[in-house]
Amino acid sequence: MTQTIVAGLEPPYYTAVFTSVRPDHPEGYGETLDRMKELVQDVPGFLGYESARTPGGVGITVAYFRDLEALNAWRDHAEHRAAKKHGREHWYERYCVHIGRVEQSYGFERDDRDD
Amino acid sequence: MTQTIVAGLEPPYYTAVFTSVRPDHPEGYGETLDRMKELVQDVPGFLGYESARTPGGVGITVAYFRDLEALNAWRDHAEHRAAKKHGREHWYERYCVHIGRVEQSYGFERDDRDD
Repeated sequence: MTQTIVAGLEPPYYTAVFTSVRPDHPEGYGETLDRMKELVQDVPGFLGYESARTPGGVGITVAYFRDLEALNAWRDHAEHRAAKKHGREHWYERYCVHIGRVEQSYGFERDDRDD
Repeated sequence: MTQTIVAGLEPPYYTAVFTSVRPDHPEGYGETLDRMKELVQDVPGFLGYESARTPGGVGITVAYFRDLEALNAWRDHAEHRAAKKHGREHWYERYCVHIGRVEQSYGFERDDRDD
């Protein structure tokens, strides 16, 4: 598994934090997710995303956008809207979306080189 | 496992999104995490948090605060600072923190009642 995280972005930028509770393997979920991952790449101003889910627990996805215009373009994308509607009807028990403007960010990377 | 997510907060509020890559079961990690979960509850303006981690993959924790003052109080907490230093030295391969001001949020909860 690739263990990359989004880092090094220059503030300000926007995050959509999506937290959810759903069954472990809902029917059709994986295919829809793959399609959304593909579509979002084409949104101008999309900067990246990460996703994590504790088995049997909560899922968190964070998507990064240059500005609100980019974030809203993805929110309103017709195929994305249809997927969200299907998710509410069939997959999610509950979810919450938090739209935030990132004002500061910083990171850490271990340097294990001996030179 | 409790499957609760933070929801229903009134914007504006602040999020600290912490994304990380680390080994699955680092020594001492669980005890430190439990202590941090306990300590953060006492920070005035702390509103809640969620955490998710895909086994072998990326971890994401989101902590919610009423304002930057509350968020910074937690960032600067002496025992929290010591834990972060230990984490950089012993646990994390990399991490990133994104501090954002939440301007909009909305949620969904399935209503499966038949009445």
